Amino acid sequence: MKQVSSGPSQISVAELAKRARVASRQLAKLSNERRNEILTRAAKAIEENAERILEANARDCRPAGAAVAAGKMSASMFARLKLSSRGIEEMANRVRDVARLPDPLGRRLAATELDDHLVLYKETCPLGVIGIVFESRPDVVPQVAALALKSGNAVLLKGGAETAYTNQTLVEIWRHCFEGFPSVSAEAVELLHTRADVMELLKLERDVDLIIPRGSRELVDFVGQHSRVPVLGHGAGICHVYVDRAADLEKAIKITLDSKAQYPAACNAAETLLVHQEIAPEFLPRAISELTQAGVELRACPKTRALLKRPEMIRAEEVDWTTEYSDLILSIKTVSDLDDAIAHIHRYGSGHTETIITEDAQAAKLFMEEIDAAGVFHNASTRFADGFRYGLGAELGISTSKLHARGPVGLEGLTTYKYKLFGDGHTVAEYSSGARHFTHRASVE
Amino acid sequence: MKQVSSGPSQISVAELAKRARVASRQLAKLSNERRNEILTRAAKAIEENAERILEANARDCRPAGAAVAAGKMSASMFARLKLSSRGIEEMANRVRDVARLPDPLGRRLAATELDDHLVLYKETCPLGVIGIVFESRPDVVPQVAALALKSGNAVLLKGGAETAYTNQTLVEIWRHCFEGFPSVSAEAVELLHTRADVMELLKLERDVDLIIPRGSRELVDFVGQHSRVPVLGHGAGICHVYVDRAADLEKAIKITLDSKAQYPAACNAAETLLVHQEIAPEFLPRAISELTQAGVELRACPKTRALLKRPEMIRAEEVDWTTEYSDLILSIKTVSDLDDAIAHIHRYGSGHTETIITEDAQAAKLFMEEIDAAGVFHNASTRFADGFRYGLGAELGISTSKLHARGPVGLEGLTTYKYKLFGDGHTVAEYSSGARHFTHRASVE
Repeated sequence: MKQVSSGPSQISVAELAKRARVASRQLAKLSNERRNEILTRAAKAIEENAERILEANARDCRPAGAAVAAGKMSASMFARLKLSSRGIEEMANRVRDVARLPDPLGRRLAATELDDHLVLYKETCPLGVIGIVFESRPDVVPQVAALALKSGNAVLLKGGAETAYTNQTLVEIWRHCFEGFPSVSAEAVELLHTRADVMELLKLERDVDLIIPRGSRELVDFVGQHSRVPVLGHGAGICHVYVDRAADLEKAIKITLDSKAQYPAACNAAETLLVHQEIAPEFLPRAISELTQAGVELRACPKTRALLKRPEMIRAEEVDWTTEYSDLILSIKTVSDLDDAIAHIHRYGSGHTETIITEDAQAAKLFMEEIDAAGVFHNASTRFADGFRYGLGAELGISTSKLHARGPVGLEGLTTYKYKLFGDGHTVAEYSSGARHFTHRASVE
Repeated sequence: MKQVSSGPSQISVAELAKRARVASRQLAKLSNERRNEILTRAAKAIEENAERILEANARDCRPAGAAVAAGKMSASMFARLKLSSRGIEEMANRVRDVARLPDPLGRRLAATELDDHLVLYKETCPLGVIGIVFESRPDVVPQVAALALKSGNAVLLKGGAETAYTNQTLVEIWRHCFEGFPSVSAEAVELLHTRADVMELLKLERDVDLIIPRGSRELVDFVGQHSRVPVLGHGAGICHVYVDRAADLEKAIKITLDSKAQYPAACNAAETLLVHQEIAPEFLPRAISELTQAGVELRACPKTRALLKRPEMIRAEEVDWTTEYSDLILSIKTVSDLDDAIAHIHRYGSGHTETIITEDAQAAKLFMEEIDAAGVFHNASTRFADGFRYGLGAELGISTSKLHARGPVGLEGLTTYKYKLFGDGHTVAEYSSGARHFTHRASVE
């Protein structure tokens, strides 16, 4: 039986990362079938150990419950960390879902015949070692462990102190599943324990390939500022709904409400409503009435307040255009035209998701082409910006970075590619001398 | 006539980057035809201004020539900065080559029907603003300006002080070409002048999307350590040739010679030869004889020296396995088997390019699967790792990073993608409530 203790306090994070690197090379060799077998076993182990997980979670919940009573923890945070039997079933099912996803490895991205018997392939492969730093929700453990395993990556996890016992138990159960697979070390999944561990992790650019922070803005910013390892994570989600002059009013109202109020805490929820001045007199009174009914607090620009003759409306200040409320608050700006809307979005937007509501195909085309964001939508709610809704099957987060992965990131974000060149004794000298010439034919095989 | 002065000493780099951002949004709107028109015009302008460029270059060469005479600059560096009429013609032709490349923008990477009248596209688009920091070779200016323009990106260039006049002249000529294209500002191409400018550039993560350092290891390392902007650039090129037990001797000798000696200064040249112990007695004496004839200095591990009974051979020390000689020097290690070779490569390699010489398909497959590097080759010289040889049509550099771009990077490395979602009033609430269901069909259109 392998060592499954995950109490690595005596081992440095650097050493754990080195071992994870070795384990990642073992994982990279597993077939999709084998990876799915481990996933299925892990799902079953989660179900079989439900009681043990609930006990550990109860231990976490005791001080957390006291913190709520003392006003030191919000009820919503407590709800996120508390697990139920149903939550554990769901955990297991999501692991099975990951097993059912198509194999992200060995996908051929390109094939080129460079010359006779000299063929180049570009194929996907695992990144290697992924560090995940997350907060509160313990269901992150099986979810990211499953995604990492499916994509052949080792993973170092650091969760919040509030769920330390739950995380520890989940990781132990997960590591047990590697028994019976002697070709892979359980060191492919490790739990880190302290903030100091995280600081060390962020410096290991040689043995860690990617860091994914999942949690509050503060966490994401902290990791981004301190990491020497590349970071995948979204920045702010300052999303806009632009209601064009030629908008269909019903669609505009429906989409505005959905983008703001369907789930305001999400990063893809809208923060600012931009309205073309010609449609504002007709659209805004109805929109405002519906938004207010939905409990949305509104903050309007001077032009909007003047136009509506409602000086009592809360005035939108400069800071409102750059604030991710993550709440039932919406800023409203009346713009003079499409260009004005685009300029506002480029000035204040965070490159996340932007939508235009219009029946004017030309205006839509301009908006879709010109807006520099991960998602540009026409007549659809910003809330569609999501890996599951996009059909990616899984979501690791939404990236507002332009490199590697942009927008909702699925399993593909945990892969890279390598070039494989198959020759038969070929040397560059033969081509430099002109004795041979490249064919560079796209290859079908 | 637009302002074409590129003496921005009074304007801050932050301000130049902001203007470049605005210009990049103009560039992103240009059709491929229009971008090619500017490129063709630039190629012609380079030819027409050959004399002016040569004059500027002569001004740069005077102090450089004196530096060579005083032993303060190498003759090879002087050769790199000195331009000839023929060199200028070649510059112009390479710009025309870039115009002929396929359009890297608007390529559809995926299309998914999420539901009726709700279709998602993933399409390539420009990164935005690219910073290039390079040394000596002034032909970098038209080359990267052309690649940036072709891919719809604005560019901030900082060249070496040795070619300040040449660079300045080339940038002025290039910027003149934007006249007659009133929709694009000449601020799409700017020259920076000082090391302090570079330090400022590396901090502008909001307005600069990517930094590409081109030059010495010191330059690449400096930029990597100080940049808050993502950096595209290769680290060391510690490439290996592994001659397997089942190698064809002729191919092994040919490929070893080519990998080391065809152009030893290149990053894809081999630094270490790994030889299976069973083939070493037959292979090594012939290989050593040919390598020595080609002027290659050899440094051997103890096992190799013992096996060859040549104690007078220079002994390879630990540092030899991690040194990119960039010269006619090769370290040799006799390994016990394929696994030993793979372990050595993973321990000391830089993830650049690794090749196995063998007639054993199973050994080749293992090597190609297991080696974690940008390029894994079978029976081919490491020197094939190159954007032109790969058929990418252009090369911005070779990346040993696993994120965004790996291996030789072509125009694709200057692009990102965005998701375009076309709906008809769709809201997420309809799907959350179960009133509608996603279809997630791969779309053909």
